[in-house]
Amino acid sequence: MAAKTQTTAPFVCLLICICICISTTTSTSTYGSKTRPRRPCKELVFYFHDILYLGYNYHNATATIVGSPKWGNKTAMAKPFNFGDLVVFDDPITLDNNLHSPPVGRAQGMYLYDQWSIYGAWLGFSFLFNSTDHVGTLNFAGADPLINKTRDISVIGGTGDFFMARGIATVSTDAFEGDVYFRLRVDIKLYECW
Amino acid sequence: MAAKTQTTAPFVCLLICICICISTTTSTSTYGSKTRPRRPCKELVFYFHDILYLGYNYHNATATIVGSPKWGNKTAMAKPFNFGDLVVFDDPITLDNNLHSPPVGRAQGMYLYDQWSIYGAWLGFSFLFNSTDHVGTLNFAGADPLINKTRDISVIGGTGDFFMARGIATVSTDAFEGDVYFRLRVDIKLYECW
Amino acid sequence: MAAKTQTTAPFVCLLICICICISTTTSTSTYGSKTRPRRPCKELVFYFHDILYLGYNYHNATATIVGSPKWGNKTAMAKPFNFGDLVVFDDPITLDNNLHSPPVGRAQGMYLYDQWSIYGAWLGFSFLFNSTDHVGTLNFAGADPLINKTRDISVIGGTGDFFMARGIATVSTDAFEGDVYFRLRVDIKLYECW
Repeated sequence: MAAKTQTTAPFVCLLICICICISTTTSTSTYGSKTRPRRPCKELVFYFHDILYLGYNYHNATATIVGSPKWGNKTAMAKPFNFGDLVVFDDPITLDNNLHSPPVGRAQGMYLYDQWSIYGAWLGFSFLFNSTDHVGTLNFAGADPLINKTRDISVIGGTGDFFMARGIATVSTDAFEGDVYFRLRVDIKLYECW
Repeated sequence: MAAKTQTTAPFVCLLICICICISTTTSTSTYGSKTRPRRPCKELVFYFHDILYLGYNYHNATATIVGSPKWGNKTAMAKPFNFGDLVVFDDPITLDNNLHSPPVGRAQGMYLYDQWSIYGAWLGFSFLFNSTDHVGTLNFAGADPLINKTRDISVIGGTGDFFMARGIATVSTDAFEGDVYFRLRVDIKLYECW
Repeated sequence: MAAKTQTTAPFVCLLICICICISTTTSTSTYGSKTRPRRPCKELVFYFHDILYLGYNYHNATATIVGSPKWGNKTAMAKPFNFGDLVVFDDPITLDNNLHSPPVGRAQGMYLYDQWSIYGAWLGFSFLFNSTDHVGTLNFAGADPLINKTRDISVIGGTGDFFMARGIATVSTDAFEGDVYFRLRVDIKLYECW
């Protein structure tokens, strides 16, 4: 009887090992698995502030129209729904919703209004950090359908402290004043950190 | 003899386990391995329809030129090869190749013609879905050298049902009518699903 | 004594196996682990050459301004700091820093100057290869703050030989002549290969 136990024990062990192997490997599989954990590896919240040049405010503007449809121009948003307006921006990033707080970085890139029957934009831009908190960049791309209270865009890459990052940025309009000013709150959740 | 078997069996088990461990881990490694499986975790096929504003067709246009070279303008493609024309679009997505089928989403973003001696474009856009089938967005970027029958671009991210997706979209021109209309077929294969 | 060894051996094996399992799985985890190896799976170095159209050099230009701010135009960079200029380019890629070396591909896409108080740009473009060395594309996006000697942007995807690639491209200005010509050196390190 004792001899029999000694003979089967190794094979029971083998079976357990294989099970553990497969389960741990599967749970971290990157290939189509439905089980990938959706826990962020890093969370960040920022605000950025966009002041559009409208012909009279050159000295405090942070953004300007550089492309517009036939029926538009570069000192006013096109009607209807700004469709076709392409804006380049260099906006301060702050930790709170105060335009006059010390900036912790710059949001730089472009947005283009691309919805013909409602307000909506496409964003391609970066956050540039060079402070004691963060050194590096985060790169973003995605759709910003302004009718929704919150909009998700993609974090498509990062450099420096954010080396190879991927994630989701949830954007919401925190405030706006006509066409001249808006403030976006950006909740960044990174799901791939290196 | 029996005693010898009982002694060596555990070590044979150990060896087998280690082999299994290494092989399963390696086959799903994300780091430079040549063995990553190229099996899509999701496949989708869509069509989208682009009607360019050419000065006379404002009411059914879905796209408009917003940037052009010195020698171009906003109601006609630049010669030669449309080089330098930047177009913003808000196109319906359909499940088949019929422009009048009920749209299942919108393709929104931009394309810019960036080849000087042949037709070719660079694409940055999103698919926006909000239907019973899909809720969320897919974000795309890549080169579209129109001389090739099929062109591969990157799925650089996704949100909602397509949370954190990555993959390849194979684009082909399904039909076109001069400069005013084209229809693209997009075969999307996602290789990273969460 | 011998019998005791035979009984405990399988359990020692089991323990060792579990340890190996956990350690190998953890070291290649893609989820927020701090231990992801930063070893590139592929390294490439290229140069590309940009000759901007400035009104007089149509026949050898490779790039042209297609969007500009209110105070700019399409045959000269805007002052100050080119802010708001959007350029479409179709540049030759070479293996060395000689403009007249045989091109090994094309760099195509756009850059837009997006810093108001210093030189800086945002890049969205692709490398297109179709040679004996490489067939496929690499897609890039990111910030290019020209004040820095080297700037890191993201490789956001790839096709063909670069199927599903991700990585970092380190860009440096290898030479420039006024506004009309610049040459970028691009050190590409891929960290995700398939």
